[in-house]
Amino acid sequence: MEKADIGLIGLGTMGAALALNIAEKGFRVAVYNRTAEVTRAFKAGAGDLADNIVTTESHEELVAALSEPRAVILMVPAGRIVDAQIETLRPLMDKPDMVIDAGNADFHDTRRRAEAAKAAGEAFLGIGVSGGEDGARHGPSIMGGGTPEAWDRVKHILEAIAARHDGQPCATWMGPDGAGHFVKAVHNGIEYADMQIIAETYGLLRDGMGHDYDRIGALFDRWNDGPLQSYLVEISARVSEAVDTRTGRPLLSVIEDTAGQKGTGRWTAIEAHHLGAPIPVIEAAVSARNISALKDERERVETRFGGAVEPLGDIDEATLEQAMIAGKILCYAQGFEMLREASETFGWDLPLPAIAEVWRAGCIIRSAMLDEMAAALGDAPGTPLLRAPAFADRIERALPALRRLTVAAMRSGHAVSAHAAALGYFDQMRRARGTADMIQGQRDYFGRHGFARLDDEGRDHHGPWAD
Amino acid sequence: MEKADIGLIGLGTMGAALALNIAEKGFRVAVYNRTAEVTRAFKAGAGDLADNIVTTESHEELVAALSEPRAVILMVPAGRIVDAQIETLRPLMDKPDMVIDAGNADFHDTRRRAEAAKAAGEAFLGIGVSGGEDGARHGPSIMGGGTPEAWDRVKHILEAIAARHDGQPCATWMGPDGAGHFVKAVHNGIEYADMQIIAETYGLLRDGMGHDYDRIGALFDRWNDGPLQSYLVEISARVSEAVDTRTGRPLLSVIEDTAGQKGTGRWTAIEAHHLGAPIPVIEAAVSARNISALKDERERVETRFGGAVEPLGDIDEATLEQAMIAGKILCYAQGFEMLREASETFGWDLPLPAIAEVWRAGCIIRSAMLDEMAAALGDAPGTPLLRAPAFADRIERALPALRRLTVAAMRSGHAVSAHAAALGYFDQMRRARGTADMIQGQRDYFGRHGFARLDDEGRDHHGPWAD
Repeated sequence: MEKADIGLIGLGTMGAALALNIAEKGFRVAVYNRTAEVTRAFKAGAGDLADNIVTTESHEELVAALSEPRAVILMVPAGRIVDAQIETLRPLMDKPDMVIDAGNADFHDTRRRAEAAKAAGEAFLGIGVSGGEDGARHGPSIMGGGTPEAWDRVKHILEAIAARHDGQPCATWMGPDGAGHFVKAVHNGIEYADMQIIAETYGLLRDGMGHDYDRIGALFDRWNDGPLQSYLVEISARVSEAVDTRTGRPLLSVIEDTAGQKGTGRWTAIEAHHLGAPIPVIEAAVSARNISALKDERERVETRFGGAVEPLGDIDEATLEQAMIAGKILCYAQGFEMLREASETFGWDLPLPAIAEVWRAGCIIRSAMLDEMAAALGDAPGTPLLRAPAFADRIERALPALRRLTVAAMRSGHAVSAHAAALGYFDQMRRARGTADMIQGQRDYFGRHGFARLDDEGRDHHGPWAD
Repeated sequence: MEKADIGLIGLGTMGAALALNIAEKGFRVAVYNRTAEVTRAFKAGAGDLADNIVTTESHEELVAALSEPRAVILMVPAGRIVDAQIETLRPLMDKPDMVIDAGNADFHDTRRRAEAAKAAGEAFLGIGVSGGEDGARHGPSIMGGGTPEAWDRVKHILEAIAARHDGQPCATWMGPDGAGHFVKAVHNGIEYADMQIIAETYGLLRDGMGHDYDRIGALFDRWNDGPLQSYLVEISARVSEAVDTRTGRPLLSVIEDTAGQKGTGRWTAIEAHHLGAPIPVIEAAVSARNISALKDERERVETRFGGAVEPLGDIDEATLEQAMIAGKILCYAQGFEMLREASETFGWDLPLPAIAEVWRAGCIIRSAMLDEMAAALGDAPGTPLLRAPAFADRIERALPALRRLTVAAMRSGHAVSAHAAALGYFDQMRRARGTADMIQGQRDYFGRHGFARLDDEGRDHHGPWAD
């Protein structure tokens, strides 16, 4: 029997979709799932693609079905199960054979596994796969981490199954070990922030301007034809205009305002803290989800304090659009700086323009602006997006709207934490002289922690209380 | 020779201060330090207190010098060194003997060590000690975690050395295993937030109202006579009025605005993320420190965008004071809810009123308001501080000032992220109907994550796109 080009373990939603995608692109894929019934049903439901699918019922069979050097994709729940799969596979494989973890691994785990593989002389890749089931089936965004040699061996398959932007595949090698999974994590954090900025805008349209749901949907559609063109704005139009089949009412009016989370945005925030990288817009988005979950308590607080908000006043739709543009750019500026910080910390040499490129299609945050960000980051290497010429100009134009909107919203009682965090970040960053001299003074007073002086080198000066 | 009441390992700044405090309160303390010279010099410099100090030059000597059942305080750097000390000590001790980790342990480590001690039938306490060197020497705030029996055995010593508030010692048993170190961590996060709110207020006085440093210092002094009475406001007055001995200029004007951090606030933020507890004011404070550290980049951003701010307009000093009061209450409300969440998660049954009490003296965040918070939390058990009658009234009175100030500051270009985060939290909490319905709609659209309906039970409803 003809050997398969690649193996895949784990036929859950994502694994099954990815296997079909691989088969569709003309590669033979050998699949294995813990439950043999699932494996058989998968092939039975694969239609024309079944010819390219080889079912196997054990790790041994799977390995035997692959052409050498072998490569096996793991699409299993992150954590110990990945380690267990690697432990089972490795004794069956030869040294040059490769394991590819395509799940949602914590990048620290990927670093550890890459290290272990390197020590053993084995090949390993950790790849972030974004775009959900639909992306996995028809073209995800793929962020690779590992040795360049390992990447090169499977690149032709990963590029073939990836999303395309203007013909260019959204599958890129990001750097060594955990680089791919880390880039995916930052993607997830930005996704939270994008969604929160949209949700706040929606709230202002609904409660501050009295728009009905259809009008809100039409507006998101219109914005999707402009600088804000993006998958998330597009689907916000679909969500806004959707009608609940049970009641015939607007769908949004029956959805409880309690956001779930798988925790991916939270992990981005935690890693940012470890790196000391400020990402306040993403943090505001995570906080907003946490607060949304406190539905019962919010009801009690409204009973005590009242939940009324006032109309937004002289804010028009164009101001909302410009404010979203400014908020979005500032959020992405923070995300790219977090990537830069991680790149230095872990010695990755992350290609920031290529990251913007790989996010242009296939993933949830895909947008027209990412194409422009890729260009701006490429044109001004080493310069933060905030100051990259093309984007600094855009921020300068859009910032007054962000300020006007945030101020109007907060004055009239609306919650716009992500907008406020974006503006607060800008106002902190644009001041060479901040207010942390007070914090340093306090720290030296109560703990003799020392401070740097503006007029001298060294960081260990003290106030007169230390004499 | 008369046996000592308690042992202490680690004569660094904090350990030495604590040992002197113990000796001063009439207990005999046996001390051990890795370097024998340090131990001898410590006793030599202890003056009258030397009579109560027993020096030892090995773990064996230390253990032999103690009355039974023994208790040894570790005041060594957190992490592996604590484990190493425990491993060295334990074989020399009997089962009922106790190790007390008084360092800045990660509470997860304390939980692990408490678990190990329990399994071995040994006694162990993890205590958070707050107040810096001065506190350790003359009366710290002590937050204990471990078994009540272990606490009871050394309570008389810990209460004797602790700070006092109206005669009541600030040393309290918080709950099992890591409870004490966790409460200390939340203290540290709140400390960051308190300092940031003060720094923002200072910035507004300096840049938005044109006050000189002496006037700012006098104002902090005045505020320290009112509802904001606190150690941090008091020392902000001292810091503001301080003169640089080298240049004769106001000290604050020569301190670089780059805040250092030992990372304690960051850990609070990370634990809050693990718990899903919103603490946006603390997060804003950590972010502000991270941004302050980007001094060079801030200079470049100012060059590009300009760093000018406008006068605050019709904001007076009373408005600033009321805004600080509202911001502070909202920050503490978040901190106490984080404690409540941890208490449920870890099964601690944390005594929130007692936590407010133990913070009233000896630690950095000590303030008059904590006394009132203790009463309010005690009067309304189970009710968040935000709705506890005494504080709900105060927030209601102070909130308009927080809103007016935040809006005026953001309009005129000042960075007030902690104030804005407090206001944003309030405006999110007081709305029974938020905007997360949009986020749930998006998540269901792109990932079929399902949502709860307002008119039905269950959390797994879908939009029409799922049909």
